[in-house]
Amino acid sequence: MIELNVQGMTCQHCVAAVTKSIRALDAHATVAVDLASGRVGIESAQPVAALEAAIDAAGYTVVNA
Amino acid sequence: MIELNVQGMTCQHCVAAVTKSIRALDAHATVAVDLASGRVGIESAQPVAALEAAIDAAGYTVVNA
Repeated sequence: MIELNVQGMTCQHCVAAVTKSIRALDAHATVAVDLASGRVGIESAQPVAALEAAIDAAGYTVVNA
Repeated sequence: MIELNVQGMTCQHCVAAVTKSIRALDAHATVAVDLASGRVGIESAQPVAALEAAIDAAGYTVVNA
C-alpha cells in the first residue's frame, strides 16, 4: 500500500478519473481516494513511478508527501 | 437562448456532466458553459423548467439570475 498526494481533484468526477487511470494500468488495484485531503491510497503490484505517471496523464499532479 | 446560473461545477468533468444532462433531454441543444462564472447558456426547444430539472438531477443547483 502506497499513499500519494494528488493535487487538482475538485469533485467526485475527479475521484473517478484518478481511480480509472490507476485501474487502466492495473485492473486489480485497490484505490481509496480522500477528496478533501487529496490522499490516494493504492494497493498495486505496479511500480510507484508508473502509478504516478498514470495519474499525471489523467491531468492531476502528484506532489511529494 | 436562455442563461442559467449553476452552482457546484468545479472542473471540466462537471462541465461535461451538465452538458450531458442537457443533451440527454435534447440531443440538438446548444450548450455553452463558463466554468469560472457558473453561467450556462442553452439553446433548446425544451421548457426551462425541464432543463433546470435535468441539471438538478445531475447533482448541480440552478440558482436565480
